[in-house]
Amino acid sequence: MKRTMIHSLPQEVGKTVTISGWVHRVRKLKAVVFVILRDRTGLVQLALSPSLFESLNLRLETVISAQGLVVESPNKLGPIEVQVTSLQVLNQVAEDLPLQVNGSHIKASLDTLLNHRVLALRHERQMAIFKVQSALSQAFSSFLQGQGFLEIRTPKLVKEGAEGGANVFSLDYFGQRAYLAQSPQFYKQMMVASGAERVFEIAPVFRAEAHSTSRHLNEYISMDMEMGFIESEEELMELETNLLAHMIKHLNETCTKELACLEVTLPKVPEAIPTLKLQEAIDILKTQYGKRELEGDLDPEGEKLISEHVRKETGSDFLFLTHYPQTKRPMYTLPCGETESHSFDLLFRGLEITTGGLRIHQAALLEESMVKKGLNPEEYSTYVDTFRYGAPPHGGLAIGLERLTAQLLGHPMSDRPPCSQGTATD
Amino acid sequence: MKRTMIHSLPQEVGKTVTISGWVHRVRKLKAVVFVILRDRTGLVQLALSPSLFESLNLRLETVISAQGLVVESPNKLGPIEVQVTSLQVLNQVAEDLPLQVNGSHIKASLDTLLNHRVLALRHERQMAIFKVQSALSQAFSSFLQGQGFLEIRTPKLVKEGAEGGANVFSLDYFGQRAYLAQSPQFYKQMMVASGAERVFEIAPVFRAEAHSTSRHLNEYISMDMEMGFIESEEELMELETNLLAHMIKHLNETCTKELACLEVTLPKVPEAIPTLKLQEAIDILKTQYGKRELEGDLDPEGEKLISEHVRKETGSDFLFLTHYPQTKRPMYTLPCGETESHSFDLLFRGLEITTGGLRIHQAALLEESMVKKGLNPEEYSTYVDTFRYGAPPHGGLAIGLERLTAQLLGHPMSDRPPCSQGTATD
Repeated sequence: MKRTMIHSLPQEVGKTVTISGWVHRVRKLKAVVFVILRDRTGLVQLALSPSLFESLNLRLETVISAQGLVVESPNKLGPIEVQVTSLQVLNQVAEDLPLQVNGSHIKASLDTLLNHRVLALRHERQMAIFKVQSALSQAFSSFLQGQGFLEIRTPKLVKEGAEGGANVFSLDYFGQRAYLAQSPQFYKQMMVASGAERVFEIAPVFRAEAHSTSRHLNEYISMDMEMGFIESEEELMELETNLLAHMIKHLNETCTKELACLEVTLPKVPEAIPTLKLQEAIDILKTQYGKRELEGDLDPEGEKLISEHVRKETGSDFLFLTHYPQTKRPMYTLPCGETESHSFDLLFRGLEITTGGLRIHQAALLEESMVKKGLNPEEYSTYVDTFRYGAPPHGGLAIGLERLTAQLLGHPMSDRPPCSQGTATD
Repeated sequence: MKRTMIHSLPQEVGKTVTISGWVHRVRKLKAVVFVILRDRTGLVQLALSPSLFESLNLRLETVISAQGLVVESPNKLGPIEVQVTSLQVLNQVAEDLPLQVNGSHIKASLDTLLNHRVLALRHERQMAIFKVQSALSQAFSSFLQGQGFLEIRTPKLVKEGAEGGANVFSLDYFGQRAYLAQSPQFYKQMMVASGAERVFEIAPVFRAEAHSTSRHLNEYISMDMEMGFIESEEELMELETNLLAHMIKHLNETCTKELACLEVTLPKVPEAIPTLKLQEAIDILKTQYGKRELEGDLDPEGEKLISEHVRKETGSDFLFLTHYPQTKRPMYTLPCGETESHSFDLLFRGLEITTGGLRIHQAALLEESMVKKGLNPEEYSTYVDTFRYGAPPHGGLAIGLERLTAQLLGHPMSDRPPCSQGTATD
């Protein structure tokens, strides 16, 4: 008999169904044994005769399939229960569980959680995080597709060490040196110049950073976009504002259950996100918060302070910082005046979640910028050649998926280590 | 003034617009110069005064922005043209183009195409391939989401050498050995067992195969899915049949222009794809085609012959082969009887585009299977532990995106090398 999912059982009252899932909880009474069954759509109460139950040795998390009659019988889990007539064990659990997954919260150390990840994820609050993360990336994709962006999938094994950074993983590629891509930066620019004009990619990037902080990951999912025929970084910032509003709307619509379970209220994205020049932010931090030693960038504490400052003044959880100095930006960033650049960061609740900006679209200027940064243009010839045959003015940005997820859900780090960290750069 | 995309110009007759793009072609007459402008949505004829044209030195592929009046004036490209009143050069092309992108086909060697990929992709027939590929992956995603599948994103830097194959890239990870994931096989099974039940991933996989044939790639995009609570591989085959039908429908609806440009008619997916046991296929090849030396698998020629045989008999471009011997399948494949396995391949026009099957979902059986394959279960303890605490019966499949794209478009290999190769395994 075809399986019925638990969430649709209330529509099956009076019918005999087959349901399958995991034994979530067991409560034995004299005349009846209640087994709470869990599938991917929810929980339901099964009523078994004690004799049937005893014959089966049903331990928690055993995988079963059961046939029975759906009857009205209001209980904690809903308006119905299933009176089981037959039951098959699909996979027996033979050992004691190393952690309990049917409580309101998981009580286990970080090590235990990670060592038994499959089990830990069966807890609603753990799986909810990944469902939210999945919904976020899908909303990123659907918004950009609606704006005419082409989804691209660029190589992760690359020959050139990307953006000149040292934090790159290298490997032997049939006797040659290859690298793991630190970002799809070069490729996304090349695809804009190839006539696609608007492209995005959601894919892993790799950073060989020996850090062990919540701000760094060696592998994370970067949500990248790049678009041509724009005149200013404000166009990117406006697009990102609308993009974030779409993503949060999508979460509110599709992850209602997960957000409730995680006790999260998502932020409101203002129609126009407050914007400060980086230097203005530094001045505020120096004069009003006694911060020193801020030279052309903010430290993590500075990011937190200025975000909180702006939240108090405007109510916005988001803040754009613009006009970063060229010295703090990669060689492909379009200069703005003598020292500044057409670039921006987006801070969300005190953490940078996006770096973006306009790019240099002329080969000569790009070569000049590379030399200034101590790079040899000849080592980047494929990339530089992109700009010899008609590349439009363009720019883009990247959002670290794990970091955005963590920051939106706002959990203390220790609560969800595997998806709590990320770093967004582009 | 806001940019108008070329494809919507027919709705702007009588209005003054700004359009931007690349100089695709130039035709000089005495009284007027026609410039064909190209943006991501199409081509349009611009009419310029010879004096304006002469002042600008507009070489092919120069990026421009132009203002002008849209007037009815039927020409090869459509019902309108734009009478240009002013024009700005956004990026001048200073050098001769290494290849011509405005002909009906690109006439250039493979080396030239690859060395000037950005330019080559501006040719409609080249970019069309990537648009089709993008649409294919999006259709894979949307179909599975509609069936309750969760999109997952699993690590590509892994500790265990995946499925025991030798063809794995390794690298130094802060003094330890790490590997590039050959497939998301372990992770997708773990996510099924974690309660997600149905998961999919579209992501790069890495194979250190020193081959240089059209059947092998060192990095490709694998479209993977895995689902729990199934009883037979037929359920997977039925799902894939519907999935492929959805993908082809999606292409026909969203890539009309690209398919026409590539002169491709997509195949019809039969309601039930013909199915042969592998041994039946081998018997047919031996008795009717004089093939020898087929032991438990088909060689590329055998795949072609049996596909053609079935096409002639049934009209189907697709063919499922089932019941592969355990010896030819990975250790996680569920045995079927003494020697066969619950597994299948899907051949499409003579090429395997999918491998799939049921998996072992019990730890003891998995350990036994590993030992049979000469693997040490202790080296796979994280994976094996997945099956100790209640993993449902499950199975899955994978489709190589580049290979499917190439095979659907059916071009000779030399025509589109960068996306013409792929290998689908799981």
